[in-house]
Amino acid sequence: MTAQPDQASEQAGRIIISVDAMGGDAGPGAVVAGLAASAAKNPEIGFILHGPEVRLRKLVAKRRDLNNRVTFRDAPDVVTMDDKPSLVLRNGKNTSMWSALESVRLGEAASAVSCGNTGALMALSMIRLRKLPGVNRPAIAVLYPALAARKFNVMLDVGADVRADAADLLQFALMGASYARNGMGLRRPRIGLLNVGTEEHKGRAELKEAHTLIAQFSDSANFEYVGFVEGSDVTGDAADVIVTDGFTGNVAIKTGEGTAKLISTLLRDAFRHSLLSRLASILAITTIRRLHKRIDPRRVNGGVFLGLNGTVVKSHGGADATGVSSAIKLAFQLAKSGFTDRLAARVASTAEVAQEEATPSAADAAKTVNDKYEG
Amino acid sequence: MTAQPDQASEQAGRIIISVDAMGGDAGPGAVVAGLAASAAKNPEIGFILHGPEVRLRKLVAKRRDLNNRVTFRDAPDVVTMDDKPSLVLRNGKNTSMWSALESVRLGEAASAVSCGNTGALMALSMIRLRKLPGVNRPAIAVLYPALAARKFNVMLDVGADVRADAADLLQFALMGASYARNGMGLRRPRIGLLNVGTEEHKGRAELKEAHTLIAQFSDSANFEYVGFVEGSDVTGDAADVIVTDGFTGNVAIKTGEGTAKLISTLLRDAFRHSLLSRLASILAITTIRRLHKRIDPRRVNGGVFLGLNGTVVKSHGGADATGVSSAIKLAFQLAKSGFTDRLAARVASTAEVAQEEATPSAADAAKTVNDKYEG
Repeated sequence: MTAQPDQASEQAGRIIISVDAMGGDAGPGAVVAGLAASAAKNPEIGFILHGPEVRLRKLVAKRRDLNNRVTFRDAPDVVTMDDKPSLVLRNGKNTSMWSALESVRLGEAASAVSCGNTGALMALSMIRLRKLPGVNRPAIAVLYPALAARKFNVMLDVGADVRADAADLLQFALMGASYARNGMGLRRPRIGLLNVGTEEHKGRAELKEAHTLIAQFSDSANFEYVGFVEGSDVTGDAADVIVTDGFTGNVAIKTGEGTAKLISTLLRDAFRHSLLSRLASILAITTIRRLHKRIDPRRVNGGVFLGLNGTVVKSHGGADATGVSSAIKLAFQLAKSGFTDRLAARVASTAEVAQEEATPSAADAAKTVNDKYEG
Repeated sequence: MTAQPDQASEQAGRIIISVDAMGGDAGPGAVVAGLAASAAKNPEIGFILHGPEVRLRKLVAKRRDLNNRVTFRDAPDVVTMDDKPSLVLRNGKNTSMWSALESVRLGEAASAVSCGNTGALMALSMIRLRKLPGVNRPAIAVLYPALAARKFNVMLDVGADVRADAADLLQFALMGASYARNGMGLRRPRIGLLNVGTEEHKGRAELKEAHTLIAQFSDSANFEYVGFVEGSDVTGDAADVIVTDGFTGNVAIKTGEGTAKLISTLLRDAFRHSLLSRLASILAITTIRRLHKRIDPRRVNGGVFLGLNGTVVKSHGGADATGVSSAIKLAFQLAKSGFTDRLAARVASTAEVAQEEATPSAADAAKTVNDKYEG
């Protein structure tokens, strides 16, 4: 990992994204192709690329769009999809993932992008970048296609974390609201808490507790709390931000994505069924493409880790060049908007407001949050 | 609730389905229309219809197909979607839902169908029909469209029950396997346990425990255990039966259904976009209809309550005549196959096998199951 000031100086004025070239299903070739696509579209962007340097230099050399846009950090090891996060924490110093986060930690890059193992990336991010003051459990937020006018809802946590208590769910609501406000331009986002029904008596104990807690913070944190929402509201217009624990969120979006893929496959089969349907498919091709573009997960690729000192975008493990480019775009936008600083300020000010405005019941809520702050 | 032997005698030789006419979003008119559709297609079927008798008689009189096929049980009260299950248990004696289950309990009908409040229906079913010996936590199983050759996977529990421990998940696996074998003709169903990843170290503690437990029973209970599956496998071909807790299952299928509805809406909009796309849509209409029929939830409408003394089919709250008719068909098929008796035998014999074949570790598993049996 030698510094390369000659190349770095050429990056002056650009927003630098740190990219883990390894660990994705499609290999570093797809990642470099994604870089090239982003570089071609956006002159403001520069990269630090992490992985086996000799191999990466060859891939980058083939892309004219990447000329003088990439600094390399040699990292011989790769975090695989099967690696246990705990093992990566102990032995992962020479991995491209570790190196990619290191550039953010050292301030060389504004944000990081990786297609690798989500659990390891989250564990490394928590240890190396550390949580924002006041955040107990960072979360992964994704954009999910919806009927809403704005076309996407924010959903968090989808990060496969196995539990979230009421105070965690409140923090997800605060972070999700901040993301929706700063990243999507929603002045007063509507927050919904995912449950098995919209009635107040339904659901697990921690959900009922979170229901009360989130409602108490809606004014001070400047969001509208719409109460419990159901799985059908993930694609609906009842809320802009869907709050849930990482286990439920992970299963829900994967089931939804599987359903979309099923329909897409069946639609293709259906259009092959007869001569008439083949003719129809030729005429319908623009229509189908329009639809595909509207809901293509590659175009909103990238879960954002919320609650860390630095922005980390987790791209889909199976992302191709389009997917990687889309994740880079998101990392760029968030870096440019100064999102992390805004989120940090929001979490901090909410804690203050909660203490200042504390009513007897809100005092309990503030205490719960503060216990977490100190933990 | 006076007996009507004159009408009942005309039903001789038919399989009688007990139907709750009330509580669905579309009202009793849709339910009666569903009855008529089923009666027209299936001469072997007869009905006991529960609800406000005068009103129901008027609706039935308009349907020639229902002539001499329906016995009435007057029930003036209705369980609404907002009624708390505990309240229905205490005060629900005069509701159509209670009455519909009573016909199954008394042996007047082979199975019951209701479009009403799921929580209340499950609570009433548990108290009035009682659980099968050996079953701790009944479950709701649904069929979900899949890429699999057979076109549907079984998923359970989707019943919004808030928790399931490892022993409950084992029972879901046993019941799901029995349903797939008897109801879908799969000789040795493949069982998958829903998690946030397929790696053994992932997920909640009870999932890791259930993972070990289910594997131990695969031979004695005659299923293949494929291990952990992910949300994307709900629509895939990795397993025939997806086992999960009722909270996760409920959120997952509602998110999946919401996604399907979103795509359907967007597809319709896309085809309206231009003159060419309108022309394409005219040519594509048969194709789209074919696809729609393939994944139409109304055609596989009906969650089945597994683990009770009697078969109860919960139709979708928003079911129209097609949906109701489909739920009735499922209730009829299960009644005709003697499914409840077979399931009871399977659960009982599995317990025996577990005891007879007990290895040191399987002995613990058998003990866990037996503790539940005695509970």
